[in-house]
Amino acid sequence: MKKRWISLYVENYSGVLVKVAGLFSAKAYNLDSLTVGPTEDPTVSRMTIGVISDDATFEQIKKQLNRCVEVIKVIDFTNIPIHRDELLYIKIASADKSDREEVFRIAQAFKAEVIDCDMEQILIRCVQSEQRNDSLIQLVHDNFKNIEVVRGGSVAIESISML
Amino acid sequence: MKKRWISLYVENYSGVLVKVAGLFSAKAYNLDSLTVGPTEDPTVSRMTIGVISDDATFEQIKKQLNRCVEVIKVIDFTNIPIHRDELLYIKIASADKSDREEVFRIAQAFKAEVIDCDMEQILIRCVQSEQRNDSLIQLVHDNFKNIEVVRGGSVAIESISML
Repeated sequence: MKKRWISLYVENYSGVLVKVAGLFSAKAYNLDSLTVGPTEDPTVSRMTIGVISDDATFEQIKKQLNRCVEVIKVIDFTNIPIHRDELLYIKIASADKSDREEVFRIAQAFKAEVIDCDMEQILIRCVQSEQRNDSLIQLVHDNFKNIEVVRGGSVAIESISML
Repeated sequence: MKKRWISLYVENYSGVLVKVAGLFSAKAYNLDSLTVGPTEDPTVSRMTIGVISDDATFEQIKKQLNRCVEVIKVIDFTNIPIHRDELLYIKIASADKSDREEVFRIAQAFKAEVIDCDMEQILIRCVQSEQRNDSLIQLVHDNFKNIEVVRGGSVAIESISML
């Protein structure tokens, strides 16, 4: 069992999302992450999907996706170097000055940005890999009681140079 | 008809995505954008949904979402100031030096980052509002023939200060 990433070109209408997500839930495939957005061609959307599966199941998933009439192309990222980032917001309640300093230090260490605050709350935005965002959330969670997390899911594209 | 944003707290299992997306496609509601990710509580996911609708339909959508047993909370962002950004990748094929300079200038103007390149391609990453990303794509599209676009969909959180 390991995490794998695929990219799907699909027709751009809302029923396609139901169909693709439905395929995963009907077969109890472990759909870990899904993002979708239009491409340079407005009739076509592109999805980034993360699945946790063994080799045999993964082959099955790709076959079934290829069989959907709404699916235009399936790209398996398993052996392809990719750029993959996720947009993350964390809001932290902290009125204490030294706690606030700590939030700024953590943000700096993770190349996250402090984008909003008042005397009681701080909002940071981070665009990093899912794993790096996991670490940031864990760290903030361990240091502050009251946090609010919004994650956008991973978006991926084939890289140009070797990573 | 106008674009509206809602945030949904839902139970974190893959069938929920099918149910929520299915609700929109069954009623032919105009689901324009959907992102989903886990929250600080791993049993709960949070979705950011963009819909284009009139007032009456929007009230209906909220009611129907509230009726889903898997939906924990619906937040209507209509009259709430929010931070809302989208992760966007654009890959541009351009071997010409002055074209490449233009890509760097455009990236700078849009506060996008050039994250990868070789002698024939350039990859930029931009985290901005959907509208701003639309403008960037349009500009690149008008200037370069061969582009590849991957968009993650908008992610939103209530802002702390007035915007």
